Amino acid sequence: MRHAASSAILVSGWHRMGYYYSDGSYISQLLVEHIKKLHALVGNAITEGKYIVFGSGSTQLLNAAVYAFSPDTSSQSPAKVVATPPYYPVYRTQTEYFNAKNFSYEGSTSSWINKTDSSSTFIEFVTSPNNPDGKLTKGVLEGDNVKQINDRAYYWPHYTAIPSPADDDLMIFTISKLTGHAGSRFGWAIIKDEAVYEKMLTYLDVNTMGVSRAAQLRALKLFDVILEGDDGKEIFKFAYSTIRHRWTKLKETISKSKRFSLQKLSSQYCTFFKRERELSPAYAWLKCEREEDRNCYEILEAAGISGREGSLYSADNHYVRLSLIRSKDDFDILINKLNTLVAKQ
Amino acid sequence: MRHAASSAILVSGWHRMGYYYSDGSYISQLLVEHIKKLHALVGNAITEGKYIVFGSGSTQLLNAAVYAFSPDTSSQSPAKVVATPPYYPVYRTQTEYFNAKNFSYEGSTSSWINKTDSSSTFIEFVTSPNNPDGKLTKGVLEGDNVKQINDRAYYWPHYTAIPSPADDDLMIFTISKLTGHAGSRFGWAIIKDEAVYEKMLTYLDVNTMGVSRAAQLRALKLFDVILEGDDGKEIFKFAYSTIRHRWTKLKETISKSKRFSLQKLSSQYCTFFKRERELSPAYAWLKCEREEDRNCYEILEAAGISGREGSLYSADNHYVRLSLIRSKDDFDILINKLNTLVAKQ
Repeated sequence: MRHAASSAILVSGWHRMGYYYSDGSYISQLLVEHIKKLHALVGNAITEGKYIVFGSGSTQLLNAAVYAFSPDTSSQSPAKVVATPPYYPVYRTQTEYFNAKNFSYEGSTSSWINKTDSSSTFIEFVTSPNNPDGKLTKGVLEGDNVKQINDRAYYWPHYTAIPSPADDDLMIFTISKLTGHAGSRFGWAIIKDEAVYEKMLTYLDVNTMGVSRAAQLRALKLFDVILEGDDGKEIFKFAYSTIRHRWTKLKETISKSKRFSLQKLSSQYCTFFKRERELSPAYAWLKCEREEDRNCYEILEAAGISGREGSLYSADNHYVRLSLIRSKDDFDILINKLNTLVAKQ
Repeated sequence: MRHAASSAILVSGWHRMGYYYSDGSYISQLLVEHIKKLHALVGNAITEGKYIVFGSGSTQLLNAAVYAFSPDTSSQSPAKVVATPPYYPVYRTQTEYFNAKNFSYEGSTSSWINKTDSSSTFIEFVTSPNNPDGKLTKGVLEGDNVKQINDRAYYWPHYTAIPSPADDDLMIFTISKLTGHAGSRFGWAIIKDEAVYEKMLTYLDVNTMGVSRAAQLRALKLFDVILEGDDGKEIFKFAYSTIRHRWTKLKETISKSKRFSLQKLSSQYCTFFKRERELSPAYAWLKCEREEDRNCYEILEAAGISGREGSLYSADNHYVRLSLIRSKDDFDILINKLNTLVAKQ
């Protein structure tokens, strides 16, 4: 809202009516250039020599990547899709929903360590920083037949130190966790291998014929505004200071109680801010410490606090995910209710 | 462009950032109301008591409908997806691409007449007016286990007489063939059965978390402008007169030749224009009449005319689809080249 004039767009009724941009693709190359510029500036991803595709949010790209890494022919055994708990539930629900012959969801990576024999492809979802717990993570499976889908939605200075630019084979980002524009449904994938890139394009063509050009225009304008403010640093300073403040408040509140605890996140050197800094996660991964508090969600709900059950993330229901990325009023209410709950113990 | 001022939108930088509309859905109810109003005005579809969902173009909705009609459990045999040639290739490519355990593409309806035994569900794509040939069609398979996906993209007064409002169980429309805004990726499905509607919503949630709210805003504005002009009739008068003119010109040109022919479309009473009228198809389904002209596409291409091969539509390559929905300049060039080609014969 600080950039009300520059962030607005005026769209003529006949803007971008057709299917294609001038190069015959569904993808705005100007927007690709903006994305590359921003990653270079933040230093959170290497884009040189890589390919970029767009999706309707990261959601569509997650599934596109699963199809892209899975075998084309039915003569090969289905790819095994795995992740390490606690993990974002969409990896599992989406993979199961599409119910394809060429891949299947095979649970936790822990069942497959040292068992990734080459008879099938493994597709490992790696989320760093992790959703729900904000930790910087790495893939755990090894082998030529292991493909990683690196969900980098939260790899921005808002949420984490940036130790070095990510250089994974397939990285997925979304504007939702960069500017907050979840409703625009705009995400992008950065892909090393040309054949994988071509397969992603095929999915996006067959599924939706690319991303709404109206959403691309919107994203273009938002990137413009990000790149202009304080040499592109303003939004990150603002977002980090906001979330760090919230995380500090939350830690203070929870520290008064022995009944509840939060995830531990260690400080790291951040190449963006050029100093050691704490992580400032998008979500609190709160634990009810008492053995008998088997449903932490219900305990919080009874206090008027809405979170998401640990079991959604393939974890124990002693855990609940609480979002720190909400409106200021909502956050203040959350802290008030937590203070009341903690005082009662 | 005649409505430059009213059709433009000014979008603030923070417009519709979040995931949800005020009712907690991904779907603008105001836009749903506009869509219902337009269908009532045109008389091309009954929406009363039905459910409406949005997709990233009709493309996404076609696949969502296939999943919605297919069995949930692997204990049932896969649904058989079929269509009647010539048909829009996406029905086949999409069904094959997603490679699901619960459905499979099973070719032409002609193989299944009187063979739709109840051991599996049949999903029949019915396109009326048909793409590529513009004919008003009906489903050909019968039985309680036959589900139709009615692709109604071209069921507008631009392209066809409207004999009566369509009242099918599942109808799919797209703004692309209404206003021309293909790039916005906005379509909608009108659904009779609540359980099918819920399944469509699940697909749209799992696949993309709904349609870009920017695209929905854009569509809302376009519907506003349509509904305002001449009590909502202006766009249809304009579009019909434009396409009728083109179809007439094309028929004149082709009638000079015995080597080529066009599909025959009979006149029908149109409840929208309240008179008998000719159909005015979006595409010419041109045939090279000579037996030896086995690749009509190449013959046209040699004359600088680009079309799409009949085989793409599961038809004979004596046929080529030529688009009449292109810019005026492009259409004039097409007619000039066809005149030259015809004069040579």
